[in-house]
Amino acid sequence: MQTLTVIKIGGNVIDNELTLSHFLQDFAQIASPKILVHGGGKIATRIAEKLGIETQMLEGRRITDSKMLEVTTMVYAGLVNKNLTAQLQAHGCNALGLTGADLDLIRADKRPVKTIDYGWVGDVKAVNQNQLDYLLKGNITPIFCALTHNGQGQMLNTNADTIASEVAIAMSGLYAVKLVFCFEKRGVLLDVNDENSVINNLNEADYQVLKEKGAIHSGMIPKLDNAFAAIRKGVEKVIIRAPHLADHEGTTIAW
Amino acid sequence: MQTLTVIKIGGNVIDNELTLSHFLQDFAQIASPKILVHGGGKIATRIAEKLGIETQMLEGRRITDSKMLEVTTMVYAGLVNKNLTAQLQAHGCNALGLTGADLDLIRADKRPVKTIDYGWVGDVKAVNQNQLDYLLKGNITPIFCALTHNGQGQMLNTNADTIASEVAIAMSGLYAVKLVFCFEKRGVLLDVNDENSVINNLNEADYQVLKEKGAIHSGMIPKLDNAFAAIRKGVEKVIIRAPHLADHEGTTIAW
Repeated sequence: MQTLTVIKIGGNVIDNELTLSHFLQDFAQIASPKILVHGGGKIATRIAEKLGIETQMLEGRRITDSKMLEVTTMVYAGLVNKNLTAQLQAHGCNALGLTGADLDLIRADKRPVKTIDYGWVGDVKAVNQNQLDYLLKGNITPIFCALTHNGQGQMLNTNADTIASEVAIAMSGLYAVKLVFCFEKRGVLLDVNDENSVINNLNEADYQVLKEKGAIHSGMIPKLDNAFAAIRKGVEKVIIRAPHLADHEGTTIAW
Repeated sequence: MQTLTVIKIGGNVIDNELTLSHFLQDFAQIASPKILVHGGGKIATRIAEKLGIETQMLEGRRITDSKMLEVTTMVYAGLVNKNLTAQLQAHGCNALGLTGADLDLIRADKRPVKTIDYGWVGDVKAVNQNQLDYLLKGNITPIFCALTHNGQGQMLNTNADTIASEVAIAMSGLYAVKLVFCFEKRGVLLDVNDENSVINNLNEADYQVLKEKGAIHSGMIPKLDNAFAAIRKGVEKVIIRAPHLADHEGTTIAW
């Protein structure tokens, strides 16, 4: 099977012009099929503030009322996504900026209200493997922002890590998928204060032990849960690393 | 040759929820290949105002400094484009929201500064016929907003009427293209105050006469210039009408 690389970048890449420019240059040079998934949270918070809309975060997740959904749709799908697309085109990469609504690529259900009402937040229900493959077969590089839809005309906010792993899982029937999460650290660290304590290979048993010991905590947990879910569901390789590193320098998630 | 319908809608459709909903339902039901082009000017002006950015218009054209380009990229490519896309998907139309940067579909040159500096405004240089045809062949309906790029990473604002006619012209080698401009009047009127004075067929000679007499003026002139340019360059039919009308009830532009 042909290799498909799915890379997710977050605020630490997007908010730094130089890091972003290097990253996009490297990304454009991947010769085999590839997909980029991006967040853009800090810019959304800044624009929301200018519009007098308060940002409410809960366990790292954005509470998305109607006004905040407008902001994220503007910032993620407009400002961030189209500037990334234009810059990738300048690097010779045939980029196509997307939300889950486009081509019905990612359909989601509005998260049910239990104790917390997240608002217009969607949990991924289906990724349109055929449409996505039609794009890849046409030498097109999909650039996904963190938005999905419900199939009934409603846009929904969806975590970018989750979009990356769901897309990777969906395409793993057709491609040997490599999923890379880029973040601010060199990899998953044994000691969060020591950048040289990168765990090169992490399996699920060790992850559970490290989680219980408290060595892995907070923001790393949903990221690793997404990573292990991807591996369990057919993704060939998951790597967690800083954007400028080579794959072998980060943390490889193993079965 | 197969028919391709290119429809342009402006603020009078986008800003009215009911008109928009009817329009999208009708649009979704066109069985042959189709492309939608939309503006979104009033929403951009409203968001800009909330962000404390002043809107400057000159002869109906928006002066686009860096801050205004951010606003139009957010509003056109994000808010308006993705909501149209999600709603069309709900109507069973396989919509794909686009700017000219996506797939390098529409490349433009920044307008040279003569007496007026329009800022980040682009004049269309090339429409990527092959990429657009790959989408149409895949049963995909492109939804263009009023943005292009320069191929070097820079987004540019471009008039939606112009995008519609340039796209129509570019595709006329491959399809029998019908270009429809939807606007607030029933068609081109002989007397602007009489909605029943629709000119059913307008040729270029008559247009010149009516322009000289002052019967056709201001905002209609660039629209009709785009329309006649399209007809001269191979577009089979151009119609100017209100969104809810049938083609034969508006004005048909003839050679």
